[in-house]
Amino acid sequence: MVEKVTIATVARRAGVSRQTVSNVINTPDVVREETRERVREAITALGYRVNQAARQMRTGRSRLIAVRIEPARDGINGSVLDRFLHGLTDAAGLAGYRVMLYTAADDADEIATYDELLSAYDLDAFVLTSTHHGDPRTSWLAARDVPFVTFGRPWGAPETHSWVDVDNAAGTAAATEHLLALGHRRVGFLGWPSGSGVGDARREGWHRALGSWGPSAEATDGVDSGASAARAMLQREEAPTAIVCASDSLALGALQAARELGRDVAIVGFDDTAVAQAIGLTSVSQPLAEAATRCVDLLAELLDGRAPSTPTTVLLPPSLVVRKTA
Amino acid sequence: MVEKVTIATVARRAGVSRQTVSNVINTPDVVREETRERVREAITALGYRVNQAARQMRTGRSRLIAVRIEPARDGINGSVLDRFLHGLTDAAGLAGYRVMLYTAADDADEIATYDELLSAYDLDAFVLTSTHHGDPRTSWLAARDVPFVTFGRPWGAPETHSWVDVDNAAGTAAATEHLLALGHRRVGFLGWPSGSGVGDARREGWHRALGSWGPSAEATDGVDSGASAARAMLQREEAPTAIVCASDSLALGALQAARELGRDVAIVGFDDTAVAQAIGLTSVSQPLAEAATRCVDLLAELLDGRAPSTPTTVLLPPSLVVRKTA
Repeated sequence: MVEKVTIATVARRAGVSRQTVSNVINTPDVVREETRERVREAITALGYRVNQAARQMRTGRSRLIAVRIEPARDGINGSVLDRFLHGLTDAAGLAGYRVMLYTAADDADEIATYDELLSAYDLDAFVLTSTHHGDPRTSWLAARDVPFVTFGRPWGAPETHSWVDVDNAAGTAAATEHLLALGHRRVGFLGWPSGSGVGDARREGWHRALGSWGPSAEATDGVDSGASAARAMLQREEAPTAIVCASDSLALGALQAARELGRDVAIVGFDDTAVAQAIGLTSVSQPLAEAATRCVDLLAELLDGRAPSTPTTVLLPPSLVVRKTA
Repeated sequence: MVEKVTIATVARRAGVSRQTVSNVINTPDVVREETRERVREAITALGYRVNQAARQMRTGRSRLIAVRIEPARDGINGSVLDRFLHGLTDAAGLAGYRVMLYTAADDADEIATYDELLSAYDLDAFVLTSTHHGDPRTSWLAARDVPFVTFGRPWGAPETHSWVDVDNAAGTAAATEHLLALGHRRVGFLGWPSGSGVGDARREGWHRALGSWGPSAEATDGVDSGASAARAMLQREEAPTAIVCASDSLALGALQAARELGRDVAIVGFDDTAVAQAIGLTSVSQPLAEAATRCVDLLAELLDGRAPSTPTTVLLPPSLVVRKTA
């Protein structure tokens, strides 16, 4: 039977009082650097683990970060946030935090859940995903001084909190440049109806790389809606020979339309989903593990009081995964 | 400003002492039924919420259930456990529990993580997924009296704990019967190498529905390996006109092989993934939300001391989603 390692064991090994060990764990700033190091070495050497429930009662810190698990929407693109969640759980674990999940039907439901979770669990922080225009969640949390970061920039809102995002426009710009380099001159865009931050940024990147407006079409996300919008675009005069799409679902629809019409059209999707990998669709890949790690880094800074006075913003470049469709 | 609802507020409204309110929350068995009802009505009417950290110190109950988030493996089939996780988070929330995530590289790493989580968070219970032959995790937890249920039966091990599983054999049997009803007489099976509980059950269902052994092939999971095994099977004498596959990845490979060889072969996959939905693959669908709900039900029984003396086992029937490939 292994003897249980307690604060007293750590104190004995480090040659300090139990109060000093407790200070190193709970209020390290009040302990001299050299002593802090010695205690931390003893903690590591002995494999001492802090009981979080007891610690939370003393420090008000739970080491728990909450994140919403999105409803399984469109099966094709929905996996993006699941992959972010994997990365977040990994990165949080390495930083000594655990991830708690919740579900919510909409923004109002999510805010009600914040309220409930905060009174029941004394959570340390939230990670918000799927930010959007007119998002009420960030101001609710900010008004209550609850630490949070968002994966997704504050579309249209003032930049009063730290965020991590992927440069969507750079992704479609890279896709467009790839198609231009392959010799295509009429590169079209198949995107979502304007008004969504992410969708508009993806359209903007295509436009920027093209240096002009080429043929474009709008469709709500989905294979069937993408097929029907792409069909109309391909039947116009001056039809595109290549199409950059705002999602893999739309791209799959465009592939179907091209096949039905017997056209050889280069297609690029967005999100590098399992479907893209399975059918050989060229697609823009988001660095989701990196985004998750940066979110945890920003939160740890906030929680440790190490954050700079102005919010930190991190914009990560996506990459193009070239497969057989372009 | 809304007055904070405390135990004292609840006690006043119910006309009982604060100790009685505390008893109803923490040790309801010691309180008379009628008093218990009155206090619960007051709690509901006032919207009183128990602070979980404080409650945990008193009761040793954290209302936290831990579950492993699997590494994002094969992008095609990997989504199954993500969908289970969505369902688990929903069902746990309705039952008053929250889900905490962890990652683990293998069984040994997962057991080390149990140890760490149990000493740090005083978790209520675990939900284990991906049970397999020789699984060391369940006996570790059982030896320490940690409540848990598994999603997946204890392959080859004694049934000493409660579990929920999907009837894999019934899924491939339904697929095979569907193909026989369509007039196919040579229905093949493309499965994983024998030795995995799930894979062997899926092979067994096909064999049972066929009433004999038809043409079959084995491949490790993946599109390319599936294509190569299916190609060999389709080039034999007495090649199958239909193939039941152990996964959507293998089915996608079989579709590729049939197309390359110019053969019209009916194909059925397993798991009804996003890829199956996108390309019109007929596939066996697991009732994942139902499985998650039943896991939470079994855990709540265990934690409330309402569980029967012998373990409960729940075997759920899958369903066949018929699309254009069969």
